[in-house]
Amino acid sequence: VFPAATRAQAAKADPLPSWNDGPVKQALIDFVSRVTKEGGPDFLPVEQRIAVFDNDGTLWQEKPAVQGAFLADRVQALVEKDPSLRQRQPYKAVLERDVDALMEGGEKALMELFAATHANMTQEQFQAEVRRFLRTARHPKLGVPYTQLAYQPMLELLQYLRDNGFQTWVSSGGGIDFMRVFSEELYGVPPAQVIGSSLETKYEKRGGRDVLWREPRVDHVNDKEGKPVGNDLHIGRPPVFVAGNVRSGGDIAMLEASRQRRGPSFQLLVNHDDAAREFAYQEKDGASLRAAREGGWQVVSMRDDWKTVFVTSAPPP
Amino acid sequence: VFPAATRAQAAKADPLPSWNDGPVKQALIDFVSRVTKEGGPDFLPVEQRIAVFDNDGTLWQEKPAVQGAFLADRVQALVEKDPSLRQRQPYKAVLERDVDALMEGGEKALMELFAATHANMTQEQFQAEVRRFLRTARHPKLGVPYTQLAYQPMLELLQYLRDNGFQTWVSSGGGIDFMRVFSEELYGVPPAQVIGSSLETKYEKRGGRDVLWREPRVDHVNDKEGKPVGNDLHIGRPPVFVAGNVRSGGDIAMLEASRQRRGPSFQLLVNHDDAAREFAYQEKDGASLRAAREGGWQVVSMRDDWKTVFVTSAPPP
Ligand SMILES: [Ca+2]
Ligand SMILES: [Ca+2]
Repeated sequence: VFPAATRAQAAKADPLPSWNDGPVKQALIDFVSRVTKEGGPDFLPVEQRIAVFDNDGTLWQEKPAVQGAFLADRVQALVEKDPSLRQRQPYKAVLERDVDALMEGGEKALMELFAATHANMTQEQFQAEVRRFLRTARHPKLGVPYTQLAYQPMLELLQYLRDNGFQTWVSSGGGIDFMRVFSEELYGVPPAQVIGSSLETKYEKRGGRDVLWREPRVDHVNDKEGKPVGNDLHIGRPPVFVAGNVRSGGDIAMLEASRQRRGPSFQLLVNHDDAAREFAYQEKDGASLRAAREGGWQVVSMRDDWKTVFVTSAPPP
Repeated sequence: VFPAATRAQAAKADPLPSWNDGPVKQALIDFVSRVTKEGGPDFLPVEQRIAVFDNDGTLWQEKPAVQGAFLADRVQALVEKDPSLRQRQPYKAVLERDVDALMEGGEKALMELFAATHANMTQEQFQAEVRRFLRTARHPKLGVPYTQLAYQPMLELLQYLRDNGFQTWVSSGGGIDFMRVFSEELYGVPPAQVIGSSLETKYEKRGGRDVLWREPRVDHVNDKEGKPVGNDLHIGRPPVFVAGNVRSGGDIAMLEASRQRRGPSFQLLVNHDDAAREFAYQEKDGASLRAAREGGWQVVSMRDDWKTVFVTSAPPP
């Protein structure tokens, strides 16, 4: 533990210590210097310094997707209460990790799963379940809590941007109420700066109390073209810095939206090419990397650009 | 114009100079003192200091509702382009201020009006229209721009709360994208801290550009039980300070929601009882005042509690 002054000095010396020197790190530092230089041609007033990060695969690992693991964990709990579910679809498919059987059920099966595991309860109950899960669950291969599998270089980048007057936001296909349980402690991003997919909620009396009740109906899907929509609804101002990752093309629309705004902007795309320290996976049609080439986005090679992958000191969830 | 130090000193002497001394002003100051007193039993950490204000009738006048005046102004513009609309409902009803004829058309007529005046355009186009309206329109009786009809005592209250570490939010039945045009300049509330009713928006290509397109379909109605829902979606944390006004009962649910949270909270209800300086109007069933009595909310008498009603120095819109 260093005194604050020493830490500040160290940060000044190298604000991104877990990033290897190279073109991506240099581009990040150049961009932040340019937009914070008063009187410079690219100067951005503080209220325009909005940075948005995807979550799964951008801020923490996504093999498996953590909310999927939560869903499976909840199915396990349901089956223990009602063993007859063990032989019923779509529960059987989840228990047996049988993706084909799950897909066979189509949207109806998925919605039944969501209703059974994410809905028909209050916001408080749901978030208590998420909290319990994060405390107890372990990554199946790496054996540690999921909150220890956030990316250290990205935590440094979030902090570096905040130190330079940026507001940092998360915008993810994952559930907004799921992420809000851990975003503040893990990323320094308060609940109000989290954007995600949502179920409809109702404010109504239940058991003599007024509660926010989670209905088994989708309100917003914050993926692909849904991301600029969710960002606009919550932020009301175009982000200038956007980070996403390869896998599904889910971040292309919001990365491209920031590039099209007038004035300076920055697009960062995380490529999962580090089989040794994390996972190496490709996007089937390569759309994200192609968009990066065409749009002049910065592509992070986890293998080459990152000294460390996972968070070096995680707070308890 | 005073130097900053002098202003700070004056604010310390009396943070709410446009409020008359009395029980409401005293209750406001007592509450803020209690929740900011470190080590005290009601101390709130900064991240929990969330204050939410209704807009129409709470932060500025609502006779007429400003967004209604905007809608009429847009109908006028449509009619100038296409005079045949002058004889067609629901446009005719708007031009003639014929509320009965308008109501006769029911929800379908209202949605046609909204579609014609608020939808089928980009977010940018819509907000440019709102900006133009606020610059040119005048209150029909008072003859000044609507932005000069914000309530000076409430502007002081917003600032007083911010000076004490509160985040100030607006949560209104009005349109989120309408309010975001003026909220920052008029109230010091940035777009990201505005919550309101919304239309569905789509991110799509139009005329070779990717744009946010306003669809003629309602997404969220931020009124009554919709307010705690909108607040939760945007803030993700229960507000501790909530202000609303009498008229329709539209704020009861969010005021009551803040009272039901664990720990300290404050509810403020503005009563329009000042026919001389503003307008005096009653709520038909008196539900808001009754809820205030039952819940121990503070009721503002505009006549007795406010030295001044309207903003004394408005920035240009
Ligand atoms: Ca992702
Ligand atoms: Ca109101």
